[in-house]
Amino acid sequence: MAEEVTLSLADAETLSRQVLTNNGFNPSHAAAITRSVVAAQRDECHSHGLYRLIGCAQTAQYRGIDPGAEPEIIDQAPGVVRVDAKQGSSLLAFEMGLPLLVEKANRNGIAVLGINNSFHFSALWQEVEALSEQGLAGIAMTPSHAYVAPAGGKSPLFGTNPFAFSWPRPGKTPYTFDFATSVVARGEIELHKRAGKSLPQGWAIDREGNPTTDPQAALDGALLPFGGYKGSALSTMIELLAGPLIGDLLGHETQAATPDGEGKPFHGELIIAFSLEAFLGSDKERHQQHAEALFDGILSQGARLPSQRRFEARERSRVHGVTIPQALYDELKALATPG
Amino acid sequence: MAEEVTLSLADAETLSRQVLTNNGFNPSHAAAITRSVVAAQRDECHSHGLYRLIGCAQTAQYRGIDPGAEPEIIDQAPGVVRVDAKQGSSLLAFEMGLPLLVEKANRNGIAVLGINNSFHFSALWQEVEALSEQGLAGIAMTPSHAYVAPAGGKSPLFGTNPFAFSWPRPGKTPYTFDFATSVVARGEIELHKRAGKSLPQGWAIDREGNPTTDPQAALDGALLPFGGYKGSALSTMIELLAGPLIGDLLGHETQAATPDGEGKPFHGELIIAFSLEAFLGSDKERHQQHAEALFDGILSQGARLPSQRRFEARERSRVHGVTIPQALYDELKALATPG
Repeated sequence: MAEEVTLSLADAETLSRQVLTNNGFNPSHAAAITRSVVAAQRDECHSHGLYRLIGCAQTAQYRGIDPGAEPEIIDQAPGVVRVDAKQGSSLLAFEMGLPLLVEKANRNGIAVLGINNSFHFSALWQEVEALSEQGLAGIAMTPSHAYVAPAGGKSPLFGTNPFAFSWPRPGKTPYTFDFATSVVARGEIELHKRAGKSLPQGWAIDREGNPTTDPQAALDGALLPFGGYKGSALSTMIELLAGPLIGDLLGHETQAATPDGEGKPFHGELIIAFSLEAFLGSDKERHQQHAEALFDGILSQGARLPSQRRFEARERSRVHGVTIPQALYDELKALATPG
Repeated sequence: MAEEVTLSLADAETLSRQVLTNNGFNPSHAAAITRSVVAAQRDECHSHGLYRLIGCAQTAQYRGIDPGAEPEIIDQAPGVVRVDAKQGSSLLAFEMGLPLLVEKANRNGIAVLGINNSFHFSALWQEVEALSEQGLAGIAMTPSHAYVAPAGGKSPLFGTNPFAFSWPRPGKTPYTFDFATSVVARGEIELHKRAGKSLPQGWAIDREGNPTTDPQAALDGALLPFGGYKGSALSTMIELLAGPLIGDLLGHETQAATPDGEGKPFHGELIIAFSLEAFLGSDKERHQQHAEALFDGILSQGARLPSQRRFEARERSRVHGVTIPQALYDELKALATPG
């Protein structure tokens, strides 16, 4: 059995900040990124947890993120706030834009935060959950680099384009979901390759557009959207709303950062906030209670709510801390050490 | 070969208005419903075309729609207009709310139209297309009666909950999609039953929650959501935003109209409008042109745009009129005849 290290949440935060600061991130970015990776680790979303710090450090080295960027808030319209991330992390841009988004949503009923020109690596559930913590419902979406073919097509065009939603529940963790619009995350293909395993049918096509179960052929080809032409359609909506609508790029116009500094990973993100208060006024509590009938209807037939496992992990981590592989811990310690 | 009747669009409109007026619909409702069913027939969406007039007449007879309802417009918040359909058709409510929705979206960047307490039978693409005709992008969603089980569940809870999106293209028909969040429409199950055909795997479960390929067992059981837990999650969002957020019902709280007048089909619909002008200002044209790269990327690899067939049918129908089965024509003529 592989060796593991358990850290308190406070120790995980300290380690994360040290890694980021030692790799050129200013205190504001280090704090925002730390909040995100520690929250993901806490919820046992390992792929968005402390492991991501390695990618952050490397991306900074490849000039795929500016670790000292100062985001600029633009009050675009009564219902729209834009934040120009200036090639920095989307996370600080989100945190800086959030108060104005909430204010606009509470005033108008609905409002949008558009983040431009950002490096994005985090899970969207965090951002929609942040809205629900303030009593709002939220939707978030972002395009990424071209890994996914459109339904009926044969070459990569869309990102894995995640879509997230959250709804505030009185006295409870919110109802939250967050999914990629590809059948699986690209990381799943890489895991199958490393394990020497074939892919299930329906995940990917090869470079010629033919179905493949070979992980390398899939990496050279394209992932497929979830749910056929319907998932493919949803993915185009994400490209358009979190791209041209906010004056930003389509997924296929961006690339992962590369050692030569030529990769330009920067793109947009769109977050929509709905104020239950503004929609419902004095009926808010009654209809929020009424919404619980949906969750009761799901749970009473033995199905799960989307984030149930994550919220259970959150409770465990608050008591017991987070556990990561010794090898990851050693790598992070090395990244945190000057010299 | 079955006999067919070809009607000009003007004759189809006259027939539709006669059916509706003869079945108690006031001129405003008759005009709004006629615009919808003739547009669907024109686009060769037969299931939402003239055929639906039979259901409208029957639903009025079953008191599942008030054919004389006067919708009330409520200016709920700077970004929210609500229309109480008062148990009338959602179509007149939409048409009456549209101008204020567009005005709010153009002022704020984003705005919502919530339709309450309506009978809904139409295709959502018509409403999002109406937004794109005015240069806006749009999203529409509505819950319906409980026909679909949540992923991992075993009994009906969600409606087939359609979701539609439209994006305005300069000088072209808009980019529009509209899909049910169930694997297939309930009508498909009925068609298989009538044809004595088995269902494909993965469409439905029986009353005990076990997979079934028997159409009757599926009708007694539940449809499945498209795309597994992801489509199921999307369906919950539609329930919440077009339900409790606008003070309206969840899908499972509504029922199709019944001869005894006990079925209560009334529910909500949510439409979100995005103003490209307010988001982009003087950059609007450039980014609208930029969005075309996405459609080019789809078409250039041999895939189709979601509404391509429909727009082709539209062109044909404008020249040649619409063709319906003789039996349907006879039935509509009978419904249009007083006495």
